Amino acid sequence: MSHDPIVTAYQTHIALPGGLDSKLRAALQHTLAHPGNLVRARLAYSTGRCYGVAAETSLRLAMAVEYFHTASLLFDDLPCMDDAQERRGNACTHVAHGEASAILSALALINHAYAQVWEALADVPKPMRQTAGRYVEQCLGVAGLLNGQSHDLNSAGAPRNPALTQEIAIGKTVSLIRLSLVLPAMVGGAGAFERQLLERLAMFWGLSYQILDDLKDVHAETLSTGKTGARDAALNRPNLALAIGAREALGRTQRLLGLADRTLVSLLHRAPGMEFLEGIRSRFQRELAEFQSLNQAPAT
Amino acid sequence: MSHDPIVTAYQTHIALPGGLDSKLRAALQHTLAHPGNLVRARLAYSTGRCYGVAAETSLRLAMAVEYFHTASLLFDDLPCMDDAQERRGNACTHVAHGEASAILSALALINHAYAQVWEALADVPKPMRQTAGRYVEQCLGVAGLLNGQSHDLNSAGAPRNPALTQEIAIGKTVSLIRLSLVLPAMVGGAGAFERQLLERLAMFWGLSYQILDDLKDVHAETLSTGKTGARDAALNRPNLALAIGAREALGRTQRLLGLADRTLVSLLHRAPGMEFLEGIRSRFQRELAEFQSLNQAPAT
Repeated sequence: MSHDPIVTAYQTHIALPGGLDSKLRAALQHTLAHPGNLVRARLAYSTGRCYGVAAETSLRLAMAVEYFHTASLLFDDLPCMDDAQERRGNACTHVAHGEASAILSALALINHAYAQVWEALADVPKPMRQTAGRYVEQCLGVAGLLNGQSHDLNSAGAPRNPALTQEIAIGKTVSLIRLSLVLPAMVGGAGAFERQLLERLAMFWGLSYQILDDLKDVHAETLSTGKTGARDAALNRPNLALAIGAREALGRTQRLLGLADRTLVSLLHRAPGMEFLEGIRSRFQRELAEFQSLNQAPAT
Repeated sequence: MSHDPIVTAYQTHIALPGGLDSKLRAALQHTLAHPGNLVRARLAYSTGRCYGVAAETSLRLAMAVEYFHTASLLFDDLPCMDDAQERRGNACTHVAHGEASAILSALALINHAYAQVWEALADVPKPMRQTAGRYVEQCLGVAGLLNGQSHDLNSAGAPRNPALTQEIAIGKTVSLIRLSLVLPAMVGGAGAFERQLLERLAMFWGLSYQILDDLKDVHAETLSTGKTGARDAALNRPNLALAIGAREALGRTQRLLGLADRTLVSLLHRAPGMEFLEGIRSRFQRELAEFQSLNQAPAT
């Protein structure tokens, strides 16, 4: 058992009943044994705490967001979608436990996640509760995550279209960062202006995150990322670094991170407790600098 | 457009945004074009109305339950599960539009369904709202529908085990009938005893429904059900009529329907508005009588 409470929560938050079919149990346990960096859970938890949400409730929101994210990865990795073999250095759940159990595991996480959001909203006044309920569907449903994933899968003919690539990133990446930042702020009763700043931050950082990920794919032979490299080019998948070139992609990241910095200054002015976001800001700047030096180095 | 408001609601309740990827749109439209009999939606709607829930809210609950059900069918039909080709007399969504779009459609329906339940609970007092939130996970998650489906898929070695067959029916069939009857009653503020009666009715009718369905599979050559017959025997899938024989299965249905009748009498005594359930009772009795006459006829 990990000493990191977020890891422990991730691995134990969904209770597996005694009568659970052994194959579904094994697939869920395999999935939960490899948590990844839990960045969304950490964001959601800290945001909740900053806005005065109780620790237990913040943890519920953190697990909800992370379980939604994990479920989306379980689906993305399936043979009919990305046909991935490995995730987080281990066999994908569908590879180790079969497609059906992987799908049922994802649905179990989704059902648990919704129950957690619900519970977390129990004491929230009605108008904000309704806003939050609609917001979750907006982020996860046909206007958000699912649309991004569908565009991603069906864009094989136009992988180097920058506008479409950005739309996919907004659907697939930004949606869950929005949920991580804005939903806990809603539960904590944050005002409309602060929620707007969090929306902007999610957009700028989410897009930066996706471009840096695209750059990693392109530079995979040079870097040792632990991921199979140059996968997007091979699969003809949308990748902004392929669409507009690495140098222009880096320039765009720099501009996005600049906008994020200004947004963060405004946010911290109003919500000083959100200073933990400085750590994320630094990590982005570090990654950007690494790519910049890589890009300025003479080709080897 | 249908003149049946439940059919119309089913086909239009989820709004498909303008920017929706065309493949996901087509798969969702295909799915919604073939509603089936909408029995769960009708149950939920009428139960809501009987308990004083506003028409619009009752419709939200009806659509939520039916979309949850449709999503479960989209998953069940996939090649990695039942590998079905047809559903409701038409090509399955994954056959017509690909597995990925079928999966994303199912998730779209689930996200919309949760948002509808949430909205329907907006005015419900906090304790009942919390009870309802947990109840939905109980019915749909690892303790309910998903466990039934997993046991169903992984029981190929023991298809004729009566206890396991019943457990699968409780997970797969009873869970959604429970949701159809109990959730609207919760929203309408039904007391604990009436909810208990509805739970019992869902159990007795859900199990009867499953056994009659199993009998139909066994008798498919004799009846013209429009379904591919003797599929359970061919696929080695759990079927109570195969597990204990058609005659004993009929006897069990008769006993279950007798228990349902007594429960219904108690319920109607307290909630006379639920008399629409008499129609369901009659349909069950008619089906039972048909099978009984079929079973008494000399073998041809």
